[in-house]
Amino acid sequence: MAKVGIIMGSDSDLPIMQEAIDVLRSFGIDSEVDIVSAHRTPEKLFSYATEAHKRGLKVIIAGAGGAAHLPGMVASMSPLPVIGVPVKSRNSIDGWDSVLSILQMPGGVPVATVALDGAKNAGILAAQILGSSDIEILHKIISFKEDLKQKVIKASDKLKH
Amino acid sequence: MAKVGIIMGSDSDLPIMQEAIDVLRSFGIDSEVDIVSAHRTPEKLFSYATEAHKRGLKVIIAGAGGAAHLPGMVASMSPLPVIGVPVKSRNSIDGWDSVLSILQMPGGVPVATVALDGAKNAGILAAQILGSSDIEILHKIISFKEDLKQKVIKASDKLKH
Amino acid sequence: MAKVGIIMGSDSDLPIMQEAIDVLRSFGIDSEVDIVSAHRTPEKLFSYATEAHKRGLKVIIAGAGGAAHLPGMVASMSPLPVIGVPVKSRNSIDGWDSVLSILQMPGGVPVATVALDGAKNAGILAAQILGSSDIEILHKIISFKEDLKQKVIKASDKLKH
Amino acid sequence: MAKVGIIMGSDSDLPIMQEAIDVLRSFGIDSEVDIVSAHRTPEKLFSYATEAHKRGLKVIIAGAGGAAHLPGMVASMSPLPVIGVPVKSRNSIDGWDSVLSILQMPGGVPVATVALDGAKNAGILAAQILGSSDIEILHKIISFKEDLKQKVIKASDKLKH
Amino acid sequence: MAKVGIIMGSDSDLPIMQEAIDVLRSFGIDSEVDIVSAHRTPEKLFSYATEAHKRGLKVIIAGAGGAAHLPGMVASMSPLPVIGVPVKSRNSIDGWDSVLSILQMPGGVPVATVALDGAKNAGILAAQILGSSDIEILHKIISFKEDLKQKVIKASDKLKH
Amino acid sequence: MAKVGIIMGSDSDLPIMQEAIDVLRSFGIDSEVDIVSAHRTPEKLFSYATEAHKRGLKVIIAGAGGAAHLPGMVASMSPLPVIGVPVKSRNSIDGWDSVLSILQMPGGVPVATVALDGAKNAGILAAQILGSSDIEILHKIISFKEDLKQKVIKASDKLKH
Amino acid sequence: MAKVGIIMGSDSDLPIMQEAIDVLRSFGIDSEVDIVSAHRTPEKLFSYATEAHKRGLKVIIAGAGGAAHLPGMVASMSPLPVIGVPVKSRNSIDGWDSVLSILQMPGGVPVATVALDGAKNAGILAAQILGSSDIEILHKIISFKEDLKQKVIKASDKLKH
Amino acid sequence: MAKVGIIMGSDSDLPIMQEAIDVLRSFGIDSEVDIVSAHRTPEKLFSYATEAHKRGLKVIIAGAGGAAHLPGMVASMSPLPVIGVPVKSRNSIDGWDSVLSILQMPGGVPVATVALDGAKNAGILAAQILGSSDIEILHKIISFKEDLKQKVIKASDKLKH
Repeated sequence: MAKVGIIMGSDSDLPIMQEAIDVLRSFGIDSEVDIVSAHRTPEKLFSYATEAHKRGLKVIIAGAGGAAHLPGMVASMSPLPVIGVPVKSRNSIDGWDSVLSILQMPGGVPVATVALDGAKNAGILAAQILGSSDIEILHKIISFKEDLKQKVIKASDKLKH
Repeated sequence: MAKVGIIMGSDSDLPIMQEAIDVLRSFGIDSEVDIVSAHRTPEKLFSYATEAHKRGLKVIIAGAGGAAHLPGMVASMSPLPVIGVPVKSRNSIDGWDSVLSILQMPGGVPVATVALDGAKNAGILAAQILGSSDIEILHKIISFKEDLKQKVIKASDKLKH
Repeated sequence: MAKVGIIMGSDSDLPIMQEAIDVLRSFGIDSEVDIVSAHRTPEKLFSYATEAHKRGLKVIIAGAGGAAHLPGMVASMSPLPVIGVPVKSRNSIDGWDSVLSILQMPGGVPVATVALDGAKNAGILAAQILGSSDIEILHKIISFKEDLKQKVIKASDKLKH
Repeated sequence: MAKVGIIMGSDSDLPIMQEAIDVLRSFGIDSEVDIVSAHRTPEKLFSYATEAHKRGLKVIIAGAGGAAHLPGMVASMSPLPVIGVPVKSRNSIDGWDSVLSILQMPGGVPVATVALDGAKNAGILAAQILGSSDIEILHKIISFKEDLKQKVIKASDKLKH
Repeated sequence: MAKVGIIMGSDSDLPIMQEAIDVLRSFGIDSEVDIVSAHRTPEKLFSYATEAHKRGLKVIIAGAGGAAHLPGMVASMSPLPVIGVPVKSRNSIDGWDSVLSILQMPGGVPVATVALDGAKNAGILAAQILGSSDIEILHKIISFKEDLKQKVIKASDKLKH
Repeated sequence: MAKVGIIMGSDSDLPIMQEAIDVLRSFGIDSEVDIVSAHRTPEKLFSYATEAHKRGLKVIIAGAGGAAHLPGMVASMSPLPVIGVPVKSRNSIDGWDSVLSILQMPGGVPVATVALDGAKNAGILAAQILGSSDIEILHKIISFKEDLKQKVIKASDKLKH
Repeated sequence: MAKVGIIMGSDSDLPIMQEAIDVLRSFGIDSEVDIVSAHRTPEKLFSYATEAHKRGLKVIIAGAGGAAHLPGMVASMSPLPVIGVPVKSRNSIDGWDSVLSILQMPGGVPVATVALDGAKNAGILAAQILGSSDIEILHKIISFKEDLKQKVIKASDKLKH
Repeated sequence: MAKVGIIMGSDSDLPIMQEAIDVLRSFGIDSEVDIVSAHRTPEKLFSYATEAHKRGLKVIIAGAGGAAHLPGMVASMSPLPVIGVPVKSRNSIDGWDSVLSILQMPGGVPVATVALDGAKNAGILAAQILGSSDIEILHKIISFKEDLKQKVIKASDKLKH
């Protein structure tokens, strides 16, 4: 059963959001993916957000661009941690609108915001959240960080020789 | 019966939004005022937005600050024209988040955005929208503009003497 | 007889502004299109703005870029609702000048601003304004929103299969 | 035993960060608080970040301002989810440096960023992370959201009467 | 007869614009001052801009804030050099709107823009423009610059002793 | 004899600055062009700025990008009106550095700043400055503005047919 | 003999720049202080910049605000390392102009820029530059960093007890 | 033995950082180059920063992009002057994050920041720092500046003929 729900405002966000799916898969974590548009399918937004924790999801990742309301609106209705991915979509002003409309949530309704187009980090963060109560996932994250280090060391060796 | 619905995300927005109420009253247009928080009362947001046109409202004015989702979410569910007022609230980064998260709506779901803290202009715009099919209101707007002009001319006379 | 006047500061704005013409046509609403430059044809600006409501127009859509004065200057002289489209023109600094010089109008003279290059939304907003006193148009808008929803649902289905 | 570690770059950040401590306490969640300066106590940063998960912490909240490196550096060394609070400190340029130097982490090392000065939301997010595997905390979050709603409804009632 | 016309969009701009009047007076150059609002007295704007050079004015200084259209609109109708002063008015977003809506004029219609609230420099620039064909004023400017230098030298001496 | 001096910080600015040369030529005004780098040829900057008015120049146009000091430094040493052209050069951050380091001059030392890459407008402004004391040039500017208008009217006619 | 020259564009910058003087004194390093205005005393700027290394200065610290040309112009004429302090002066737009006009120097002429109003850091950096060839100063810097650490540790202890 | 250490956060920064290596070589100054990632190899960051001055390095140049913590973290642990190069990396928001997270260091821990992608200037600045105690290098810098001047003079001659 999927523990992470990944949603996005439009199928045009999929190339970015795919990185979240892929990195979760590399940790052996199942995710379910859907398109939920805050502005075009508000009823689906409501049912998704109010049902997610009942269906067994533990974390939600939501990506959107421009005046990006999807992550914040899901966070307003779900008790689960919501990770927001600001997408630099076609209609965005260099990404600033995406970042600010996801990050600047009012007191009481947090969204865990990652970098612009940072879907990969959203997936890792979701794994870390699961890992805080699952020792197996925690160890996978420790290995993942070790791999990051080894790649830099190899690049460093290559530079010197 | 009120033709303009004025809503805001928090009662702390009222000092700004009062200007919309006042200018509409000066045109003899009734408005109804309510607090509807996108992030804290999402069900109320839904019922408000889907019912507004059925209750006889013709225009909705929505004010909010920070990651301001209220105007856009109402616009996603109502067929009425929605006027958004970006409020420079306590938690806003100099107003940029409020402006961008209201203005930069995706194709299909417009919000008629006015200036930062521009609730007075939101009220005038609502009157102009009603005035486009109501000759009496149209004439009041023409008079209003004439008054604006006279005030400047008086200030100009005062400056010269 | 056209109910919506669409003007732009330069014929180079036409590819963007065409979206407003098209979406209005899809609602069965006639528009008339013209080039009115605030800075190069100020007399035409004056006659256009002061005559528009007398000629039967109900809403004006004005698009311009850079130091974009057309929407605000039309709004200063017409009692009609004016929708401003900030165009990211060749001489614009990433669109910021276009947005701010249209949005930040002083108290008394609103411009209903839509997103950067958001001409499609300007057309929809014009339809909503007409729809607030025309039940037939209102129903078309309700259908339009239903269509938006169906497209997302189809994309969602496609993603899952 | 504390499950949430709250650290900040300077004791001048404490008035902001206190909101995280308080909201966690209201959920009955213990936190431990410390000052860890990335730039002045780098050794302590190292030992803190590498030991935190071994000491039983499940989530880390890190607040800092200006060129704010504390959250990202902790995230580079800990497998735990790290929540970053951009603080609008005395030396910050309107908060933009704090936000960008916490949010824009490279692929591989996420920081869950909340709004500028959003320590309260950092505390709630930490509770949600714990709540994703602790049904009791999850229910407290559901109650917390219900309380938010009731406060708005009361404010709305007061406005109308 | 006044050679420099100083206009502003509102009497609230006078405290800033007074510096232009004063510095011109210190050069022995007469100016005439008026309030001309692009948005509230557009007819006056038209007559002012089209008549200025016929009345013997040689330079126009125009100050305005927010979506500041006055300098650009005067420039569109007058063949005279127009100096624009972006005013950080009450409704401005930290002055950015004032600066961009005056500076970013399209090709063909320049406005000589000075710094935010830089009315003093607008006055000096007007004097320099007159001085380019009036040797007496040119010498006054040379003296003025010498005075600037002496003040710094005095401050430097004071610092060292 | 040239009345307008056009200088730029680097020969890479020439494609932009050429528009100033061309528009002045179209008004029959001679200009002299040179490369004067504030940062690489400071002595030449000094001699140029202190000699320009003695050699008969009436206006100086200076273009530069990035931390653009040329226009302001020339203005500090010449009594002539100096027009600054912010160039969006290769090393510029989207033009913001060029604009701010030319526009935001301290009280006492104005630079008449035009739009980003606005060299054409710099040339027109120089002509207007000369035209304020030369009736022949003034009439050429009036004709130029008439031509601008005719071009828009033709584009408008073409659009309608 | 002073090894560090500290200059500023105006005596109004002294309260900020005093921190550089003080921190250098705490390292036992003599500095000489002067006011050198790029825009009002350009000749002094020239003689200062071209003579500094001949007089035995090893590092120059230059502070200025708004369109801040002093650090860059000194760097253009001196072979010494120049440290630039962007000052948030009265006429600055939130410090952005000061930062960009000092930082964004063209290739060939570096300015070592520190944080907005970061005069203290300018002083420390000057000491580090001297320390790179003076073992005594290097040890003082190591002690200084140790002191920074101890202060944080004390604040941490105080927080816990 | 190398006197300048050049490090970067990723091998993707090498094309930019190469300019620092090249310009140092042109001054006859040896540098050693390495990849040190603050976020992926924090232990290497620690050992590098704490050992650099013991190995005989006199200056460190550190380049990074996005939330760029490398220069500041090295500066926190090394007594040497650290030059920071903000790199406009793939994940950066137009370079603003890179600039602000390197420049805006807190009091006590300076980073000598150069322009966005300004690695060449970082190399020159490193040479100037060495030159402040090495008369041979100082003379090379004086020659270098003379060469810059000659190139401009040649470009100027070419323009005129």
